[in-house]
Amino acid sequence: MRAEIIAVGTEILLGEITNTTTPFVAHELADLGIDVYYQSVVGDNAKRLTAAIKLADSRSDLIILTGGLGPTKDDLTKQTLAAYLKEPLVVDQPAMAHIEAYYKRTQRPMTQNNRLQAMLPANSTPLNNPVGMAVGALYQADTRTYMLLPGPPSELEAMFIDSARPLLAKKYHQANVLTSRVLRFHGIGESALVTKLADLIDQQTNPTIAPYAKANEVTIRLTAEANEQTQAKQMLDHLENQVQQRVGAYFYGYGEHNSLEKVVVGLLAKRGLTITAAESLTAGMFQSMIGNVSGASAVFSGGYVTYSLAEKAHLLEIDPAYLQQHGVVSEATAIAMAQQAKKLQKTDIGVAFTGVAGPDTLEGQPAGTVYIGIAYRDQKPFARQFNFSRSRNLIRQQSALTGFDLVYHQLQADQK
Amino acid sequence: MRAEIIAVGTEILLGEITNTTTPFVAHELADLGIDVYYQSVVGDNAKRLTAAIKLADSRSDLIILTGGLGPTKDDLTKQTLAAYLKEPLVVDQPAMAHIEAYYKRTQRPMTQNNRLQAMLPANSTPLNNPVGMAVGALYQADTRTYMLLPGPPSELEAMFIDSARPLLAKKYHQANVLTSRVLRFHGIGESALVTKLADLIDQQTNPTIAPYAKANEVTIRLTAEANEQTQAKQMLDHLENQVQQRVGAYFYGYGEHNSLEKVVVGLLAKRGLTITAAESLTAGMFQSMIGNVSGASAVFSGGYVTYSLAEKAHLLEIDPAYLQQHGVVSEATAIAMAQQAKKLQKTDIGVAFTGVAGPDTLEGQPAGTVYIGIAYRDQKPFARQFNFSRSRNLIRQQSALTGFDLVYHQLQADQK
Repeated sequence: MRAEIIAVGTEILLGEITNTTTPFVAHELADLGIDVYYQSVVGDNAKRLTAAIKLADSRSDLIILTGGLGPTKDDLTKQTLAAYLKEPLVVDQPAMAHIEAYYKRTQRPMTQNNRLQAMLPANSTPLNNPVGMAVGALYQADTRTYMLLPGPPSELEAMFIDSARPLLAKKYHQANVLTSRVLRFHGIGESALVTKLADLIDQQTNPTIAPYAKANEVTIRLTAEANEQTQAKQMLDHLENQVQQRVGAYFYGYGEHNSLEKVVVGLLAKRGLTITAAESLTAGMFQSMIGNVSGASAVFSGGYVTYSLAEKAHLLEIDPAYLQQHGVVSEATAIAMAQQAKKLQKTDIGVAFTGVAGPDTLEGQPAGTVYIGIAYRDQKPFARQFNFSRSRNLIRQQSALTGFDLVYHQLQADQK
Repeated sequence: MRAEIIAVGTEILLGEITNTTTPFVAHELADLGIDVYYQSVVGDNAKRLTAAIKLADSRSDLIILTGGLGPTKDDLTKQTLAAYLKEPLVVDQPAMAHIEAYYKRTQRPMTQNNRLQAMLPANSTPLNNPVGMAVGALYQADTRTYMLLPGPPSELEAMFIDSARPLLAKKYHQANVLTSRVLRFHGIGESALVTKLADLIDQQTNPTIAPYAKANEVTIRLTAEANEQTQAKQMLDHLENQVQQRVGAYFYGYGEHNSLEKVVVGLLAKRGLTITAAESLTAGMFQSMIGNVSGASAVFSGGYVTYSLAEKAHLLEIDPAYLQQHGVVSEATAIAMAQQAKKLQKTDIGVAFTGVAGPDTLEGQPAGTVYIGIAYRDQKPFARQFNFSRSRNLIRQQSALTGFDLVYHQLQADQK
């Protein structure tokens, strides 16, 4: 079973966007035990796309085409594949109803080319698009399987997980059970994590260990192959135990679709605790990440963005003389901000962020110098200093995420 | 002149790492006026790599191979290309000296396969690696040019900019000047924009028009080819004029690396105006986006995250009875929030967000129902209702971005 992924889009060829959908699909296929032998990118050009499909046909069993399902003239993947397969394009009624409902609801005019998004080659199995307009398709020829997936990562990922993956899992059913477990880590880099697990990774055959560096975190996926589920689970438990002994201090949760903020908001809700924040350099990012989590209102009512010294004094009722004496980028200020936010919002936890996002220095401190303050229940409030690096926005993102990390560790310590 | 990029690495095929070097090279080549027609990925397998080189040979003039120059058993790009070209591998003395010095300096033992990193196909021009060990190479055959670049992004980028780019610029010196201009639009979808520009796009030859859908916005790139800069600029001016006549209402700025928040913060700073916000469903995202912009402190001191009804009343000093009477998801509440935020923060502009992020309904209103309130200087405050769609987080992102859009249009109207 050889799979091949063809990403279609001139904007990828020109390097205007980074192709993140191919790695996603490749990763998912690997997880299903399907080998990807080739990946390629072609522009929005019917002739070259046809040549790419023909080449794929000559060497691969499963051919996945991503992108070019949209409504514009550039989008010709579906039409090109249909022509190649000698199938007409037909309307998928549920997809058409979905598009019509969208335009009705949003009171925007629907154009003729929007209808194209609901069409697919005849004799295909439609793949539902839960977050966008363009329907996907699975087409089974005699010896080859073709799949059409949309280009935008959010659409492709949702469609793949909801519809495509179950179909492929069923189709390429393995004699053995493949079971995976994803462990998530924050506060350790990929190379440091890999170094600590080097001998385990070297010895890996079954289960396997695959580390992945993500934005500001690292995940590892353990995959066991066994005759049946119970045995695979035991193998994973055994390996995870070895992993946790070495890097458990950085572990925060399980699952491919998880995040540190989700874990923290979940823990807070479970324990009936509430949280607020006072944010300077992060300017609302930490609170916005709380708001990302569905059900956040159980633990979060509101908080403060205090970008200037004056607003740290005004909104948080801190003596401006105190702020001037210690400096806004200081341990004392971070502690005072966290304490006052907690007190004024009457929450169990207050988190504060103050520091230098850059590019310029502030109070003589370099960009990346950040203090995060934590006021946790009736414990003594504290602040920790960090020296983050890279761009302004990455410094702010690392700050916000580290805020969740500190809260997570407080919650863990409190449990013990 | 057709270029093709082949990335070598099983870890890319398996989706374990995202291929960021191909987009980098593609973007650089586009900038040099060199057209990339194909991109592909092959694993660390000599047979399949040879087939990929052979295929590239049949259709491309410039063939760039990235990755697989390292010291491990997996790394076979250089050996495979050399065998294909029927050239022996020879030592590049400066690269070897560099490697030997590194191992001497770090007092680490140097292995035989480290020496391999200093070798390249005979008759190549070596490309210096300023940040790593592996030397790159440019090989000129009769009608084809081959380039070997390292896989790690930091090494590839440094080598490309220092050595490869100057060589290519010299080699493929264009007689004509290629000049691009990127226009950015918010509040119109890609398909609607393309419909309005359909005839211009159809007629496109020189200059060309290329639309791209980005997250919550659309850009179009106009590219003119001319004998010299002034003429190209005139061609772009003429075409942009036609574009602006049709979709100028959605235009907000120029440039590949720009954003609506950057334009708005820039305009505010220029006019000496200040801004604040009260955020419910966006929970700080709008303010965090202000904080993304370097120099935001000139226009922004702080603001409010009021997630619950109680905090809308408490922090913004709004009568809770008023909020209960109108509902938190209402025009009246959005206006009151904007007004009070502006008043309490003594700013020129107050922006408020209240609505249903979902997935559940709120006050009987469906997810995506959002009111954005604007209190602008001494004008009558107002709120607009929106019905956004898709996931919780996309609804929140669209809300925050639309806040900037409303402020942008206020600023534009105020100027006139």
